[in-house]
Amino acid sequence: MKELSDASGVPVATIKFYLRERLLPAGERTQPNQSQYTDVHLRRIKLIRALIEVGGLSVAGARGVIAVLDLPGQSVHNVLGLAQHAMIPPTPTPDTAEFRAARDQVQDTLGRLGWDVSPNNPGLHGAATVLRTMAELDQPRLADLLEPYARAAEMAAAADLDAVTGAGAGGDRDAMVETAVIGMVVGESLLLHLRRLAQEHVSVQRLAKRPGPRPAAATAASPRPATSPPAISTVPTDRSTP
Amino acid sequence: MKELSDASGVPVATIKFYLRERLLPAGERTQPNQSQYTDVHLRRIKLIRALIEVGGLSVAGARGVIAVLDLPGQSVHNVLGLAQHAMIPPTPTPDTAEFRAARDQVQDTLGRLGWDVSPNNPGLHGAATVLRTMAELDQPRLADLLEPYARAAEMAAAADLDAVTGAGAGGDRDAMVETAVIGMVVGESLLLHLRRLAQEHVSVQRLAKRPGPRPAAATAASPRPATSPPAISTVPTDRSTP
Repeated sequence: MKELSDASGVPVATIKFYLRERLLPAGERTQPNQSQYTDVHLRRIKLIRALIEVGGLSVAGARGVIAVLDLPGQSVHNVLGLAQHAMIPPTPTPDTAEFRAARDQVQDTLGRLGWDVSPNNPGLHGAATVLRTMAELDQPRLADLLEPYARAAEMAAAADLDAVTGAGAGGDRDAMVETAVIGMVVGESLLLHLRRLAQEHVSVQRLAKRPGPRPAAATAASPRPATSPPAISTVPTDRSTP
Repeated sequence: MKELSDASGVPVATIKFYLRERLLPAGERTQPNQSQYTDVHLRRIKLIRALIEVGGLSVAGARGVIAVLDLPGQSVHNVLGLAQHAMIPPTPTPDTAEFRAARDQVQDTLGRLGWDVSPNNPGLHGAATVLRTMAELDQPRLADLLEPYARAAEMAAAADLDAVTGAGAGGDRDAMVETAVIGMVVGESLLLHLRRLAQEHVSVQRLAKRPGPRPAAATAASPRPATSPPAISTVPTDRSTP
């Protein structure tokens, strides 16, 4: 186990936790107090870590997603659906008129966009919950985000499916499944981080008081000079570029 | 406190937790064992709940975001930046060649798109972390998501700023700030749920074996008939449409 910890960079205590939580299969016992681990274990440890630490899944969510990866014989399309259900903890649907109206609003919008989605898709319940929350916070205007966000989500999903199809170009179904599931989970985090960057970019364009335009392509890749006007992310952090 | 619990639908124990965690200001003490709460408290409770339960923030993240909302005199642009930093726990930047290369890859992509972002934006570190994770999981192909995701994120951010500008149409800076911060936090959840729906929609179009095309606009808004082929979200759940 020491070697496994060194190779993966994951502490022994964390590996023991993964074993206890049945995220990681036990090694082959070679002696009473000694187990043998293989590259399969190493790959699995990296995957668990990515699902939990980068994808933000709970232990139960990670366990469910891994179980889906290990399912034999499912189509890639079905694996995507099963993984979606595994990563999102089920929550009861509030049976209120307001919640039903919010769900109808989501379905109407998607219908207008010509989307073909099942009423069981957990995203439907989730999106309706967010709309209800916006209304409860006296922010009904935020419901206008629904359609542009759906268009943005469709662009992201098209890229997801491109990656999955690309991974299966050699006819390797297991490669497609792995790319689909990993992309689904860690892709969420990528999209949210890019939204943070995009918010700064759009906010600079629209809201920041600036002395004048500067060449955007150059500044995006190089550190901001110390004389810049205050900007969305000039708050001091431990993370400034060296 | 009983009335506050009834009005907000949040249990008394949870309200006490919010008070203890300094998420909620204390009520005005009217008698030794009695405090007075106002609509300000009620609104704040709804906000805390939205940030934590819908936005997925930690208690510390919610406390930071609320502190930013309460800051006087900041421009909307600065509030957005401060809120971004408050909601994302700072993590040390790994000083490895691989991590720096991943960050350069993100910056190069954004530079090509003409984005103007600060090297301190926490999304830069986050996006680079996801790229490194994809590489460690032997999924370098997923790095191709970077550019289409960035374009999708820009669409979402443009809608965010539209909502903020709309909220400030009457010259109300506080309304703009509130819409900006709430939209930033709960909007993440909306975008991710719509991505789940979009993945089903695109997957149905590309991967599902189906008897033939059907009118998409109609099926998206109405329950799927029982004779449909297996689809991404036909897994049984507690949440099926009544």
